[in-house]
Amino acid sequence: MTEVTVASLTELVAGRLIGDGERRVVGLADLRTARSDNIGFVRHPRYYEMAATTEAGALLAAEEFPTKASLIVVKDVDVAYAKVAMFFHPLPLATTHDIHPTASVHPEAELEQPVKVGANASVGKCKIGAGTAVMAGASVGDGAVVGKDCLFHPNSCVGHDVVVGDRVILQPNSVVGSDGFGYAREGATWIKVPQLGTVVLKDDVEVGSNTAIDRGTLGVTTIGRGTKLDNMVHIAHNCTIGEDVVMAAGAMVAGSTVIGDRCALAGQVGIAGHLNIPSDCRFAGDTVVLKDKNIEQNGDYMGHPVMEKRKYLRLMREMRKLGGGK
Amino acid sequence: MTEVTVASLTELVAGRLIGDGERRVVGLADLRTARSDNIGFVRHPRYYEMAATTEAGALLAAEEFPTKASLIVVKDVDVAYAKVAMFFHPLPLATTHDIHPTASVHPEAELEQPVKVGANASVGKCKIGAGTAVMAGASVGDGAVVGKDCLFHPNSCVGHDVVVGDRVILQPNSVVGSDGFGYAREGATWIKVPQLGTVVLKDDVEVGSNTAIDRGTLGVTTIGRGTKLDNMVHIAHNCTIGEDVVMAAGAMVAGSTVIGDRCALAGQVGIAGHLNIPSDCRFAGDTVVLKDKNIEQNGDYMGHPVMEKRKYLRLMREMRKLGGGK
Amino acid sequence: MTEVTVASLTELVAGRLIGDGERRVVGLADLRTARSDNIGFVRHPRYYEMAATTEAGALLAAEEFPTKASLIVVKDVDVAYAKVAMFFHPLPLATTHDIHPTASVHPEAELEQPVKVGANASVGKCKIGAGTAVMAGASVGDGAVVGKDCLFHPNSCVGHDVVVGDRVILQPNSVVGSDGFGYAREGATWIKVPQLGTVVLKDDVEVGSNTAIDRGTLGVTTIGRGTKLDNMVHIAHNCTIGEDVVMAAGAMVAGSTVIGDRCALAGQVGIAGHLNIPSDCRFAGDTVVLKDKNIEQNGDYMGHPVMEKRKYLRLMREMRKLGGGK
Repeated sequence: MTEVTVASLTELVAGRLIGDGERRVVGLADLRTARSDNIGFVRHPRYYEMAATTEAGALLAAEEFPTKASLIVVKDVDVAYAKVAMFFHPLPLATTHDIHPTASVHPEAELEQPVKVGANASVGKCKIGAGTAVMAGASVGDGAVVGKDCLFHPNSCVGHDVVVGDRVILQPNSVVGSDGFGYAREGATWIKVPQLGTVVLKDDVEVGSNTAIDRGTLGVTTIGRGTKLDNMVHIAHNCTIGEDVVMAAGAMVAGSTVIGDRCALAGQVGIAGHLNIPSDCRFAGDTVVLKDKNIEQNGDYMGHPVMEKRKYLRLMREMRKLGGGK
Repeated sequence: MTEVTVASLTELVAGRLIGDGERRVVGLADLRTARSDNIGFVRHPRYYEMAATTEAGALLAAEEFPTKASLIVVKDVDVAYAKVAMFFHPLPLATTHDIHPTASVHPEAELEQPVKVGANASVGKCKIGAGTAVMAGASVGDGAVVGKDCLFHPNSCVGHDVVVGDRVILQPNSVVGSDGFGYAREGATWIKVPQLGTVVLKDDVEVGSNTAIDRGTLGVTTIGRGTKLDNMVHIAHNCTIGEDVVMAAGAMVAGSTVIGDRCALAGQVGIAGHLNIPSDCRFAGDTVVLKDKNIEQNGDYMGHPVMEKRKYLRLMREMRKLGGGK
Repeated sequence: MTEVTVASLTELVAGRLIGDGERRVVGLADLRTARSDNIGFVRHPRYYEMAATTEAGALLAAEEFPTKASLIVVKDVDVAYAKVAMFFHPLPLATTHDIHPTASVHPEAELEQPVKVGANASVGKCKIGAGTAVMAGASVGDGAVVGKDCLFHPNSCVGHDVVVGDRVILQPNSVVGSDGFGYAREGATWIKVPQLGTVVLKDDVEVGSNTAIDRGTLGVTTIGRGTKLDNMVHIAHNCTIGEDVVMAAGAMVAGSTVIGDRCALAGQVGIAGHLNIPSDCRFAGDTVVLKDKNIEQNGDYMGHPVMEKRKYLRLMREMRKLGGGK
């Protein structure tokens, strides 16, 4: 159990402390069940009354209000909550060097101690940075270069020669570096084009369960720093995905498309190949961007065919009329 | 080879026996190739002629008709067929305690004998009920509690602390208990919100290949008793899915949505987050329910934008006219 | 490093040689960085100028043009490139018999030497042809029959009794032979219908990452010779997919549907069950074929509802008008 002063947590979240900073807390709790060694959080003024009488020793809140708890005032309670929660529940990274007896590690693999390799995991002739944990059944191919403090969940696969930055998280059964879908047609027959490139995941990328990122045909498929991909996302060969992008479950991007920074793709969005999506575009769920339609500026997009969101909302009203009802 | 009397099978399917109940059968066969120790099935009156002369020793049918076979008359031939087929082809559950030498089982795991753990499977410090089989390469995390007679197919993953009922089937490469897609935004950066909750799969749930069910942020993602999920289904964190729900391949449900009992989602359906879908709703293939549209009562829904099915069918006719053809 | 004469490569690609056939090359390179022992390729006349002065010892091109390199003139540069690239970068098939010490191979498995079985892979009582490589964590079930020169990437799963032709590639985490989604309804309860059939993958099939192909209920799910499936494709039970079909990521085909030869499904296409799609149909991205609409002849299709492509393009223009803008 981690024990910490309220003053330390205030520093962690860059907050402003009101009250006793020497109190010690050992974990998070909600307002109702908190004890004096817990820290709670107040997301909305409607909870001020409850928070006034909570037993919690400390509270995260967006402004000052009357309470007997020590108060840590922060700009964004959600961000502060995330940091405090991660403090009390850190990722299961490697803190001691620990290779499970059933794991397979290539004798020439370069593991920067400490590294954890779980049961039945397979590590090829690759490099892995300190702190990284390769969990049960996961595999890392030959020639891969993996950074520090990464977490590869069970049965995730990192292909040969893939480059992974620091603090990258792969959820279970995710795949990084499978072959791109590339064929040349000879008569009716599809001839496989060897996929000789690789994938680069920059720092702080997270990849969801059963998501697949294909290696480049010759060059590189790149996922930018801080980008987060949900479950069952598909990134085809030679894509370049910007920084701080989010893609919800089932979003798919076809080959060679470039997605700018801070774009957001909701669930089941599809983007055709060889497009160039500017930074700061947001696509509503199930939006489909085919090749007939360039996205030329940032903004909110929606629908099939894709349109500016406000226009598509109008179209939806018209469509409902055509159907004879709301 | 299992040998059984026709009388016993009649009892198994709660049918009505016409003819000799002492005949013994050893397996299913179709009407043409059946031998005297096979049981066949007749789904439609058009097969009565063929069934009259089949060699099969017994037949499942919905009503009496002339045949030399023993006849088991049942209300629903499909249901009876399913039960008889499962009798002759039971799931490969554990009947003897059998830990494969290449498997890894945590020394403090509590396995209620008999349990089968296959080649290169990894079982953490968890509890597993009698009869459960963990097949090749599958993993069960620390703190998981798994019921009786479950079947975890190769490379399926059960995350830490996940709770699984009895008779749950996980198809290959399915994931239960991956992290939900939760981040707080600090400037342009997405800060990971630790996903501290878990997943509960109630009894008789089946999870398809490459399907992913995320753990709750703080609470629980629940899949109700008897619910069946096809391949590549996505259930986001904090969803509550009712009982006897079916979701076909590619159906995706965003975070915190509640789906009532007996709902049916056809392939590639998408449901936005924080919605409340009543029981007994059916969604046609590729239907998308965005946040702009509440589903307030049970019924048949379709389309993008989602509408009552009969209205969307009318809209489709209008759309085809606008395209200048059927 | 493989060294080969230009004359040999000319034969490999069935080209016409102009210049010195005795030159030796050791690999591919682009025009700018090529050395004299590299072969380059010229896809378009706009590169003729650069190709005139390249250091490359040989070039693939579609017609004759002035250059000091040996020229291999071919009908299709992409096809010739694919063959030359595969020559220099062959798939990592088995060339020596090599069972990793952490792999599990059933004592009665019949492996036709040489076969490679990687770390923590699991091979049941099955047959595997010469040249096939089963990579880390992959599994092959009892009764499976696998051909020659197949490549099963990490954590791919071949179910029991599945039949796999020659030169079949399974990308990581793909599943062949999971149970079909078959249930009979008894009251509100779904009773599992045992899936007693299997899957047949014909020669030269490729299956993408996290793709799933379900076994037949009684019969067979068939993927025709030369068919290529991208990532997260779903093929339901009892489908018959023709030869030389391509399906891009996220395409899904429901149960018992027949897809003809040389069809092309773009990303996220959905096809309902029990349909019969003629050969040579092409479906644009996200097209949905529901049961209300038969596809009766080959051609280009698009949209939701599915229409002939030219009609749907017209409909899209009308829809954009209804939304009040392009």
